[in-house]
Amino acid sequence: MTLNSVQAQELAAETVQNNLNYIWTIVAACLVFFMQAGFAMVEVGFTRAKNALNIIMKNVMDVSAGGLAFFFIGFGLMFGTSAGGWIGTDGFMLMNIGDYSVEWSYTFFFFQAVFAATAATIVSGAVAERTAFNAYLIFSIVITAFIYPIFGSWAWGSLFNGSGWLEELGFIDFAGSTVVHSVGGWAALAGALVVGPRVGKYIDGKPQPIKGHSLPTAALGVFILWLGWFGFNAGSTTTGDTSVALIALNTFLAAGAGAFAAMVVSWISTGKPDGAVTLNGVLAGLVGITAGCANLSPAFAIVAGAIAGVLCHYSMIFIEKYVDDAVGAVSVHGVCGVWGTLAAGLFDSAGFSWSVMGVQAIGILAAFVWTFPVSYLIFKGIDALIPLRVNGHLEEMGLDLHEHDAEAYPEFTPDNSVAPA
Amino acid sequence: MTLNSVQAQELAAETVQNNLNYIWTIVAACLVFFMQAGFAMVEVGFTRAKNALNIIMKNVMDVSAGGLAFFFIGFGLMFGTSAGGWIGTDGFMLMNIGDYSVEWSYTFFFFQAVFAATAATIVSGAVAERTAFNAYLIFSIVITAFIYPIFGSWAWGSLFNGSGWLEELGFIDFAGSTVVHSVGGWAALAGALVVGPRVGKYIDGKPQPIKGHSLPTAALGVFILWLGWFGFNAGSTTTGDTSVALIALNTFLAAGAGAFAAMVVSWISTGKPDGAVTLNGVLAGLVGITAGCANLSPAFAIVAGAIAGVLCHYSMIFIEKYVDDAVGAVSVHGVCGVWGTLAAGLFDSAGFSWSVMGVQAIGILAAFVWTFPVSYLIFKGIDALIPLRVNGHLEEMGLDLHEHDAEAYPEFTPDNSVAPA
Amino acid sequence: MTLNSVQAQELAAETVQNNLNYIWTIVAACLVFFMQAGFAMVEVGFTRAKNALNIIMKNVMDVSAGGLAFFFIGFGLMFGTSAGGWIGTDGFMLMNIGDYSVEWSYTFFFFQAVFAATAATIVSGAVAERTAFNAYLIFSIVITAFIYPIFGSWAWGSLFNGSGWLEELGFIDFAGSTVVHSVGGWAALAGALVVGPRVGKYIDGKPQPIKGHSLPTAALGVFILWLGWFGFNAGSTTTGDTSVALIALNTFLAAGAGAFAAMVVSWISTGKPDGAVTLNGVLAGLVGITAGCANLSPAFAIVAGAIAGVLCHYSMIFIEKYVDDAVGAVSVHGVCGVWGTLAAGLFDSAGFSWSVMGVQAIGILAAFVWTFPVSYLIFKGIDALIPLRVNGHLEEMGLDLHEHDAEAYPEFTPDNSVAPA
Repeated sequence: MTLNSVQAQELAAETVQNNLNYIWTIVAACLVFFMQAGFAMVEVGFTRAKNALNIIMKNVMDVSAGGLAFFFIGFGLMFGTSAGGWIGTDGFMLMNIGDYSVEWSYTFFFFQAVFAATAATIVSGAVAERTAFNAYLIFSIVITAFIYPIFGSWAWGSLFNGSGWLEELGFIDFAGSTVVHSVGGWAALAGALVVGPRVGKYIDGKPQPIKGHSLPTAALGVFILWLGWFGFNAGSTTTGDTSVALIALNTFLAAGAGAFAAMVVSWISTGKPDGAVTLNGVLAGLVGITAGCANLSPAFAIVAGAIAGVLCHYSMIFIEKYVDDAVGAVSVHGVCGVWGTLAAGLFDSAGFSWSVMGVQAIGILAAFVWTFPVSYLIFKGIDALIPLRVNGHLEEMGLDLHEHDAEAYPEFTPDNSVAPA
Repeated sequence: MTLNSVQAQELAAETVQNNLNYIWTIVAACLVFFMQAGFAMVEVGFTRAKNALNIIMKNVMDVSAGGLAFFFIGFGLMFGTSAGGWIGTDGFMLMNIGDYSVEWSYTFFFFQAVFAATAATIVSGAVAERTAFNAYLIFSIVITAFIYPIFGSWAWGSLFNGSGWLEELGFIDFAGSTVVHSVGGWAALAGALVVGPRVGKYIDGKPQPIKGHSLPTAALGVFILWLGWFGFNAGSTTTGDTSVALIALNTFLAAGAGAFAAMVVSWISTGKPDGAVTLNGVLAGLVGITAGCANLSPAFAIVAGAIAGVLCHYSMIFIEKYVDDAVGAVSVHGVCGVWGTLAAGLFDSAGFSWSVMGVQAIGILAAFVWTFPVSYLIFKGIDALIPLRVNGHLEEMGLDLHEHDAEAYPEFTPDNSVAPA
Repeated sequence: MTLNSVQAQELAAETVQNNLNYIWTIVAACLVFFMQAGFAMVEVGFTRAKNALNIIMKNVMDVSAGGLAFFFIGFGLMFGTSAGGWIGTDGFMLMNIGDYSVEWSYTFFFFQAVFAATAATIVSGAVAERTAFNAYLIFSIVITAFIYPIFGSWAWGSLFNGSGWLEELGFIDFAGSTVVHSVGGWAALAGALVVGPRVGKYIDGKPQPIKGHSLPTAALGVFILWLGWFGFNAGSTTTGDTSVALIALNTFLAAGAGAFAAMVVSWISTGKPDGAVTLNGVLAGLVGITAGCANLSPAFAIVAGAIAGVLCHYSMIFIEKYVDDAVGAVSVHGVCGVWGTLAAGLFDSAGFSWSVMGVQAIGILAAFVWTFPVSYLIFKGIDALIPLRVNGHLEEMGLDLHEHDAEAYPEFTPDNSVAPA
């Protein structure tokens, strides 16, 4: 059939918009991809030199092995045709997708695969400095292949056909405060509990500080994450249009508010503006705006980010009493993910509604009830199969030497006396 | 009213172009945002290990507190409806903007906020290693809220209504050699003068080298800044069209020419190609093309960049005799900003004109006459209120320990004998 | 002539698509530009602290001096009107390009200039830690001005008029496994042979490990390169349309497969998952998909990447016996470049054909036959003119002190006992 001229035009402008959607989504996916470098640098900087290579290996594998696991299994479970809102059933390896656009499925997969890697890498930091590499690798594959995608299918539904049950209820989680960050955070909590605290973390039951070996490295990581988050939030439109404006602005403001509020709180409570607290405040603000980045006004983005920064600080102090989370991942991603999801309802620019808040609460609970016990059991299972944890003496020697037969900085000998044990 | 088919088409292609403008501006803003990481790494690398966290804290606050200050106050003063070309009067918090596009105001704000943070962060490097954090924080907020925006309103005018007086004269400063870099540079000069030189910088009135602790970190920062500058210059079109081509090319060539020329000059004058001079040559070339990136031919971009690289080297040697600027920010941003603004007139592809040069000179002078005395007085005021400077003994101990109760590299003890004092 | 309304529309949608092509190509060029930072960090991290600044200087000059050389000479030789398929003849300084779009030539130049810098920087790593800076600088300019562009003109042909002879044969090398990576790799091989091994690399003819001084720095570089490669491969469309989807996906999957496969092989052969091998596996996977990123299915991208990861590991072990390549550049870029070019034929989604494989083999051979002897002779010539190599004693002292009168980390004294000699 020949199109008449007007129809041809209609096609053309639509085609260009479609191309723009591809370009935007791919550029955003590149930014999200780069967050892997950010997580790696944050985790390396906030832990000790003797475990730096081990952390890098885990982060490289989160996106390498995790990316492959998401390709072969996870993507289909998350975005395949939904079986009653509970699980995806096709689209594995992006094959057999009927007459759905293959090229769009490639683009969408790339964007979603780097999200899945993010969920995995959150766990990496929490269990750092004492977990066996092979055990971690198994969990990283399991979370990207099963744990994250199955919950994701509830909240974000199918690319092809059918909706998730949480999506049907009207759950608001635009870019994944719950879907990505809380899921990662609760899996991190399970991992940290099962593997237990690092040698020397608790003396007479009191938590001892174990300082990270390079704050500039951690700061670089935070800046990279902040950069990547513009892709994470604004790219979640997967559409190159004006709706990205509010999202990018909210992401910028909330992170700044999180950093500023966290710094002020640390200043008031300790007498000094604390570096690690401020850097984590950036991340807290970002997690806190992730759910509501598209439906909050800029002023409320500032409020949501500032509260996240404060909450993160106190959450870290509280959690540290009971669980050794090496980089504070449970607070930053788990707790602030909950807050962000609540904030998306509380400050909704469409107005407050108790029913919306109820749905948000259901989503938050569902994430915990699914992720924490399942992750806990899987960590326990891995521990039964392979010891999850390296031997205490080897832990003191450092995972780099034991697990990878290498040192991160072979010409510079760390002064281990600054760290306990 | 119903559009007929042809009108509908007209709308569609325009809509897609509008969307492309948003996407380009936001992507460019992300690149400019990332320059904060670049500045942080450059300043960390070019200073001593004992002050690394302090520098990071200042850079994080420049974009966090500074971003908020620009949201609440600065943006309205800079881009609000102009009162006679001297100051903006509305648009604070992006509210009350009449029937102007809210979404575009969000996009434009994001792009401009990261510019404001750049002006602030230039000061950070110059006054590094001896300035009290609380004092710096106040100045960082003042420059992003008042000093930078007011001058900006003269040169770039209102987003909504009215032009700036310099803009009316025809002042050429496409991406801000004067508006951003010279303003930052003159504020940095004022700060460095008021706070005074670091302990040990001058012995018998002769400047002593105080080496930066990590050249690889500084080099990474320079590469990040170069990357971000493509957004800074080419994004200043805020339009996704073919005009970005010349700008991106000029930015690439001028930076390379600046690096090459600076290296050659250092090689000739000292017998060795100097690392810090070459890295600063990149930045000099970038500042030198920022004003004229859109109206110089590529060949003249090379000339402008090369001259900037040479100028920066000699400016640093000269300024160091009188003022302790820890990273050479006054030369890179202040002096090369002047040169870039002159070059935009001198090498204008529309042809040379004395009247254009006169306007360029007026703009350059206006920036100095506004920024330097105001910044000087504000630094003096802060110094009266809070001591601007930390105690000499604490300075020798390092700002990280004194100001933030932390060390940047707790496992690696720096050998302070290499630094004077 | 006045367009009627429908024609006007036709123009408009085409104009927007054209603008999108510019924006995409420039964003991709920025990503490729950032690869220079990635190469710098990889090479710095994988070599010793005493040579870190020297490596940075080389990388800055590859893109600075090399970018200028490509502007004045290389671009015309590569993309100017082809003289019989063997060399370009015009377009130097982007002048005299007839009625070809000047603005597109600017955009295309920017994208191609950062490719040329990549070819040069591959050499930098191989000859690191013993090559004189002035000698290296000459070679860097020669490869970007002559060696790379002349081969490029055979494979990719003219922007203006005429095709290259390899292009005419149907040679498949979409983003440059051969054109960029093998050419860089064979030049690196020539350089490493002519300059000879580092002091202490061979004891009784047996290669000794010389450990890099910062694996976190190298890992950051690998992540930056992976990010930049999305621009390298998907940007090679120079068109903002849906064809980027497959390319980006393949780039993501092949790198992950390369990392995973390399890690597994090192684990099996040494009993530990090796850090350097895994990081190089990422790069190997990326080089291995560069030629075929647009014509392989995702499943075969995984296969091509995994084979590249394994091949790279064994190639490094083999080459190290005979040639001291400080970072494994010959294996990563030369050998995996060959593999990638073969894989583009072998796994072509249009089906396997012996004639395609024959052309691929011709292209691979042509790259070696052109690049290796010419580079070898040029290195020999430079060596006759200026000694290519620094004196052995100065090499042990480190190139930073000798060549640049500086130390990369002046506050931290490396413990050189960990490195041989």
